[in-house]
Amino acid sequence: MGDPVALLQDLIRCPSVTPIDAGAQGILKERLKKLGFEIFDLPYGEGKDQVLNFFARYGSGSPHFCFAGHTDVVPAGQTNWQNDPFSAEIKENVIYGRGACDMKGGIAAFVVAVESLLAQHPDFNGSISFLITGDEEGPGINGTVKVLEWMQEHHHIPDFCLVGEPTCAQTLGDIIKIGRRGSLNAVIKVEGTQGHVAYPHLADNPIHKLMTILQSLTNPVLDQGNEWFQPSSVQVTSIDVGNEITNLIPATATARINIRFNNLHTGSALAGWISTQCHRVAEQCHVDVLISGEAFLTEPGNEVRAICQAIHNVNGVTARLDTGGGTSDARFISRYCPVAEFGLVGQTMHKVNEAVSIEELKQLTSMYLQIMEIIFYDA
Amino acid sequence: MGDPVALLQDLIRCPSVTPIDAGAQGILKERLKKLGFEIFDLPYGEGKDQVLNFFARYGSGSPHFCFAGHTDVVPAGQTNWQNDPFSAEIKENVIYGRGACDMKGGIAAFVVAVESLLAQHPDFNGSISFLITGDEEGPGINGTVKVLEWMQEHHHIPDFCLVGEPTCAQTLGDIIKIGRRGSLNAVIKVEGTQGHVAYPHLADNPIHKLMTILQSLTNPVLDQGNEWFQPSSVQVTSIDVGNEITNLIPATATARINIRFNNLHTGSALAGWISTQCHRVAEQCHVDVLISGEAFLTEPGNEVRAICQAIHNVNGVTARLDTGGGTSDARFISRYCPVAEFGLVGQTMHKVNEAVSIEELKQLTSMYLQIMEIIFYDA
Repeated sequence: MGDPVALLQDLIRCPSVTPIDAGAQGILKERLKKLGFEIFDLPYGEGKDQVLNFFARYGSGSPHFCFAGHTDVVPAGQTNWQNDPFSAEIKENVIYGRGACDMKGGIAAFVVAVESLLAQHPDFNGSISFLITGDEEGPGINGTVKVLEWMQEHHHIPDFCLVGEPTCAQTLGDIIKIGRRGSLNAVIKVEGTQGHVAYPHLADNPIHKLMTILQSLTNPVLDQGNEWFQPSSVQVTSIDVGNEITNLIPATATARINIRFNNLHTGSALAGWISTQCHRVAEQCHVDVLISGEAFLTEPGNEVRAICQAIHNVNGVTARLDTGGGTSDARFISRYCPVAEFGLVGQTMHKVNEAVSIEELKQLTSMYLQIMEIIFYDA
Repeated sequence: MGDPVALLQDLIRCPSVTPIDAGAQGILKERLKKLGFEIFDLPYGEGKDQVLNFFARYGSGSPHFCFAGHTDVVPAGQTNWQNDPFSAEIKENVIYGRGACDMKGGIAAFVVAVESLLAQHPDFNGSISFLITGDEEGPGINGTVKVLEWMQEHHHIPDFCLVGEPTCAQTLGDIIKIGRRGSLNAVIKVEGTQGHVAYPHLADNPIHKLMTILQSLTNPVLDQGNEWFQPSSVQVTSIDVGNEITNLIPATATARINIRFNNLHTGSALAGWISTQCHRVAEQCHVDVLISGEAFLTEPGNEVRAICQAIHNVNGVTARLDTGGGTSDARFISRYCPVAEFGLVGQTMHKVNEAVSIEELKQLTSMYLQIMEIIFYDA
C-alpha cells in the first residue's frame, strides 16, 4: 500500500481557504489522471466568488462507488500555531496543518487507497469516482449542490457515496454517520401595543402572546424518535424584549427557536406548523424561518456493513452508526443516492494546531482500501 | 375669600427641588403662625440629605382635619421652558412654573381656604393641621413616613386626611382618589446549563423553565376585583436572554414582572407566592421582589361625601371615586387614618411649562373652603 503522508503534506501546503484553491485540486487531478481517471472540471460562480470543483471517474462498470470531499479549509484563525499552519510540518509522527483532519487527510487516504486497489486489481471492472468541491466550508452554493446536478445530467450518480469528513470522536472508526437530523431556525416577533402596566386593558402585552406561542411549540412531543434517530427537539434559544422600565408594557417581543428534527418531519412542514401556531395566537406576528438542512437517513445496507467490517479488520474497533451532530454536504448527496460519512477523528478540526498522526492516516487508508475490497470483491 | 395667586407665586419662586427647601416652608409657616397655628419643625436626615418637614396644628377640638402636601418639586428638566421655571410669571391668566400644579397650587389654595374659614368663624372649635414634607418627589424616606410616626407619638393623628395632589384628569373635580392599588416588581433569573442545541439532554434550558414559571404567574386569575378596585393584574414587562448564537442553549434567562394588586392582596403574600412558583419549577432561581406600595382603600364616608358636595357646589362637576393610577404619600397615611386625595388637574405635572390657571386655582380654593364648611359646620 502506498503512503498518504507526502500527498497530505502537498495538499496542506496549498493554502486553500474557501473560495481559494491554491493548486490543491491540481495535485489531485494529476494523481488521478495518472491512474486513468477521466476528469471533469466544474467551476461555478463568477469573478472572485468562483469556486473550483471537479468530478473524476474511473471505469463505467457496476457498482459505482463515489468518494466525496472538499479541498477548501477554514482560515487558520488565531496566529498562535506552533508552526506555519500551511507548512505541514511533522513532529513526533504527527502532521500539523490546517485541513490535516478536515479533510485533506481523508482525501489523501482515499486517493492512495484507490491507487493500491487498482494496482492490486489490474482487471478492475467496477467504477470509482471523486466528487471534489472547493466550497464546503463557505456558502455551499457553488459546490456539491451544483456538481450533483451536473452528475445527474451526465448519468454519473453513483450507487453509493462515502463522504470522508472527520466523523470519529475518540478513536479512528468509532463513529460512522448514516444520516443527520435536520435543523431549522425561526425568529418570531410579536407586535403588541405599548402601555402603562397600571392600565393593561389599554395595552396589548406582546410578551404574554409570545409565551403562549412558545408553549404551543415546546409543549407537544413532536415524536418519540425511531430506530436511528433521537426524538426531535424544539429549543427556545433566546427571548429578547429589552424593556428596563418597570411600569411599561413593551410594544414588541422577539424569540429565537431551533428545531433539530429527525426523518419523521420535513423542514417545510415544521415551518408551516410554526407559522400556524404563531398566527393562531397573535395576528401581528412576523415569523422568519431558515431551514439549514433536512433530515436524511441511509438505512444500513451492504456498503455500511462494509465500512464497519473494514474498520474492525484494521484496528478492532466496533463502529457506532450515528445520526447526531451538525450538518455536512451529505445532506445534499442524500437526495440522489445512499450516503454515509466516515473519516478521521475530528477533535482538532477548525482548531489551532489541527493535526493527524501518521499512524491514524495510514490506518484510515487501510480502512478505505478494505471498504473497496469488500464492496468490489466481497473480500 | 382671599387670593391664592400671590402665595402660589411666592412658593414657586423658591426653587425647592428635592431635597432643597429654598425658603418655601418658611413662607407657609409664617402665614400659619399669623393664624395661630402651632408649628413643629421636623427635619430628618443628615447633612446634604437633610429634608425639612413640619407639622402645624390649629385647635385641639374635634373633628381633626389634616391637609397633607409637599413643597418639594421635581427638577425643571429640559431648558426649553417659555419662561424661567421658577419665575412664576402670569400670561393670559395662567401661572407658569415648576410646582404650579404639583403641588404648590394645592397648598396655596388650602392655606387661603383655612384663612377664610377662620376669618368667617372666629369661634372655630375643631382642629385643622398641615402635614408638609420636602421629600415626596425624592426617596420618600425622611418625609411623610417619619412625620406620621412623630404625629402618632404626639397624639396628632387626625380623623381624616386630605392629600392635595393633582388628581383631576380633564376638569377640576372630575376625580377623587380614595385608594390606590399596590405595586410590586420582581426580577426572576433562572440559571440553567449552557449547551449545544443538538444535544439538549446535555444542557438545561433556562428559558423553558422561565416560560413555565411565567405561565404559572400569569395564567391564574388573581381576583375578580371588587366594588372599588379593578382585578389585580400580573404583567411580564421584559424577558431578556441576549443569545444570538442559533445553535446554543443559553445559561441564564431573566424576566421582569409587575403586579398591580388591589386590597384583596398584600405585597408580602404575593412575594411569597412568586417565590414558591419559581422554586417549584427551577431550583436554581433568583427572585428579587420590590414592593413599591401596598393597596389601600378609604371606604367613602362623610368626608368623601363632603368633597363631592363641595366640588358640585362650586363648578357643577360630579366627581368619580377612583383607585387607579400610581402611588403617592397617601399610601403611608392610610396606615394611620382615612385618607383621600383631591387637587388640581394634573395634565402639566412634571412637564415643561407646568401651569395652573388663576380660575382653576381660585375654584380649588373655594372647594377646599366648602369641604371644611361641610365637615365642621355641616353647611
